[in-house]
Amino acid sequence: MKRIGRYTLELEQSPWIESYGSVCGKKEWEGPLGEQFDKSFLDTTLGESTWEKAESRLQTEAVEIALEKGGLDQKDIDCIFSGDLLNQCISSTFGLRGLNIPFLGQYGACSTMGQTLAMASVFAESGGADRAVAVTSSHFCSAERQFRFPLEYGGQRTPTAQWTVTGSGAAVVTSGKLSPKKRPSITDGPFRKRRITIRHITIGRMVDLGVTDMNNMGAAMAPAAAQTIADFLEDTGSKPQDYDLILTGDLGQVGTELLEKMLRETGIFIGENHQDCGLLIYDREKQDVHAGGSGCGCAGSVVCAKIFPALEQGTLHNVLFIPTGALMSPTSSQQGESIPSIAHLVHFVAESC
Amino acid sequence: MKRIGRYTLELEQSPWIESYGSVCGKKEWEGPLGEQFDKSFLDTTLGESTWEKAESRLQTEAVEIALEKGGLDQKDIDCIFSGDLLNQCISSTFGLRGLNIPFLGQYGACSTMGQTLAMASVFAESGGADRAVAVTSSHFCSAERQFRFPLEYGGQRTPTAQWTVTGSGAAVVTSGKLSPKKRPSITDGPFRKRRITIRHITIGRMVDLGVTDMNNMGAAMAPAAAQTIADFLEDTGSKPQDYDLILTGDLGQVGTELLEKMLRETGIFIGENHQDCGLLIYDREKQDVHAGGSGCGCAGSVVCAKIFPALEQGTLHNVLFIPTGALMSPTSSQQGESIPSIAHLVHFVAESC
Repeated sequence: MKRIGRYTLELEQSPWIESYGSVCGKKEWEGPLGEQFDKSFLDTTLGESTWEKAESRLQTEAVEIALEKGGLDQKDIDCIFSGDLLNQCISSTFGLRGLNIPFLGQYGACSTMGQTLAMASVFAESGGADRAVAVTSSHFCSAERQFRFPLEYGGQRTPTAQWTVTGSGAAVVTSGKLSPKKRPSITDGPFRKRRITIRHITIGRMVDLGVTDMNNMGAAMAPAAAQTIADFLEDTGSKPQDYDLILTGDLGQVGTELLEKMLRETGIFIGENHQDCGLLIYDREKQDVHAGGSGCGCAGSVVCAKIFPALEQGTLHNVLFIPTGALMSPTSSQQGESIPSIAHLVHFVAESC
Repeated sequence: MKRIGRYTLELEQSPWIESYGSVCGKKEWEGPLGEQFDKSFLDTTLGESTWEKAESRLQTEAVEIALEKGGLDQKDIDCIFSGDLLNQCISSTFGLRGLNIPFLGQYGACSTMGQTLAMASVFAESGGADRAVAVTSSHFCSAERQFRFPLEYGGQRTPTAQWTVTGSGAAVVTSGKLSPKKRPSITDGPFRKRRITIRHITIGRMVDLGVTDMNNMGAAMAPAAAQTIADFLEDTGSKPQDYDLILTGDLGQVGTELLEKMLRETGIFIGENHQDCGLLIYDREKQDVHAGGSGCGCAGSVVCAKIFPALEQGTLHNVLFIPTGALMSPTSSQQGESIPSIAHLVHFVAESC
């Protein structure tokens, strides 16, 4: 691993995504990506007695699927990086406590899938782990009552509001020295001809332009995405057109327009190959989600359900993944604070294998 | 970096603690370590309008002191690892948003100083950072109102309850390839003859033995400390007597007795060289803290105020630092959940330089 430029790490030992799993709730299953999730729960309680326990189960399920698809068990995993939006990250801790795997809780709000993938990649690159798991989750109902209103209140949502995704994504990041534990076979579906390697990571800096509207996260987070993308392009001497896809996490419609505008003003044009997980996961014309999807589980489940398969199957080759997070709490907002935000970048390249 | 045994990483490139800073509130200043903190605030509001903003300021102050003592500025730091107990880690984000340093939020409850030091060490070891900062904080008043009762309520505390430390500790972890930026001089106080290197880290696994009493964190966390210490000793083939000091984070009196008992039952005797930051920071006979100190800032401020100077000055040589965290939230406890806990270990060795 070496630093290039000011903010970017180049991974030289080819850590790669050995396996991954994604789960979602009913609304996500009804959206455009529905069939691509490994498992969906039409009862979003998942049979649990509280929303928080349901969210924990999402993480348990996503990790179990990722392990099963890779032919792995708990003993194959050296370390797990996980985080979520709930106070004290209880979805992660309660969802994963049964695994008996060394655990490092991460907090990057909705940027957490970028952060956990980055940390797992650094560990797999540097000898810290042969295999590390990156996982995150969110649940519409646990997020609504913690950050906004109890569901029973039936509060009106503003046009800039986003819909917290009920979902989770988990990925196994493996040292470049290791071969797949499970040999892929025809019966598994498309035969794996490509290996998803993590080539670069750029750790974000906090940005705070003074946005205070808790119902407009896209506007608060767009500047962080713009900064991290600009940092990465400068550090690597590359341009947006070098990538098939520049994928942000949950900027939604408002944040997406702002991001593209902010970058355009600095001479960076990403419109053609930019997509946002928050716009991919729902059909905004048919589903009442206002500005799009959000939550840790948005970027987490979309990257595992749609992007990793496309990289393995050869429809994508070279992808920048930049989930963004709004680093506020209801308390900080009630105290009149603005919303700092952050974005971490992970660069995936599909290699023939 | 290489894995030894099942759970331990051996750092081979000698990352080291280049500088550190500690701050505390009035009660901590009145305790046995009072003069050893770099800065204390007799007004625990720190002049801020809310307790949460006061806690954020603790982190800002600790990092600024660590940088100043090392002759460093923000541009010298490649990455900052920080976490705290508040919902969505707002002490960390709001305390550090002005620094413009790549930021990775960590959540390990009161084990966070171990986790941030471990992550900063991995980055400094592997080329991820020339210099990385590890920092954490807690504040009695912000913790009381979030986890227990509003201060104005005047709730009675149980004998097993601990007192959340108002304090913060920050350390700069530097690549073994770099020399000190600031040459120590006689006028700085004791001339630095020793370099504190990080030799090993052991990432903890969650343990949950079914404790549900939110007022007895020591009992919930002791099993995690016992497990991580046993893992480390087995992985390294060492015994407790090989170390000058085995320092837990905030087990307090109840947890300390339990830890020593649990280890004794497996043939590991740590009593003579075991201390706990939660018992060092207050005088339990004169200060009304019941079972001792707690909070992320307890281990963070004690290691920076007392242990790092002792390692540099030669009164300590070989130290195991094992802060513990209780991974619950008020919500999980109200839902009847037990308290999972975790402990991460960092092994410091003072080398002549």
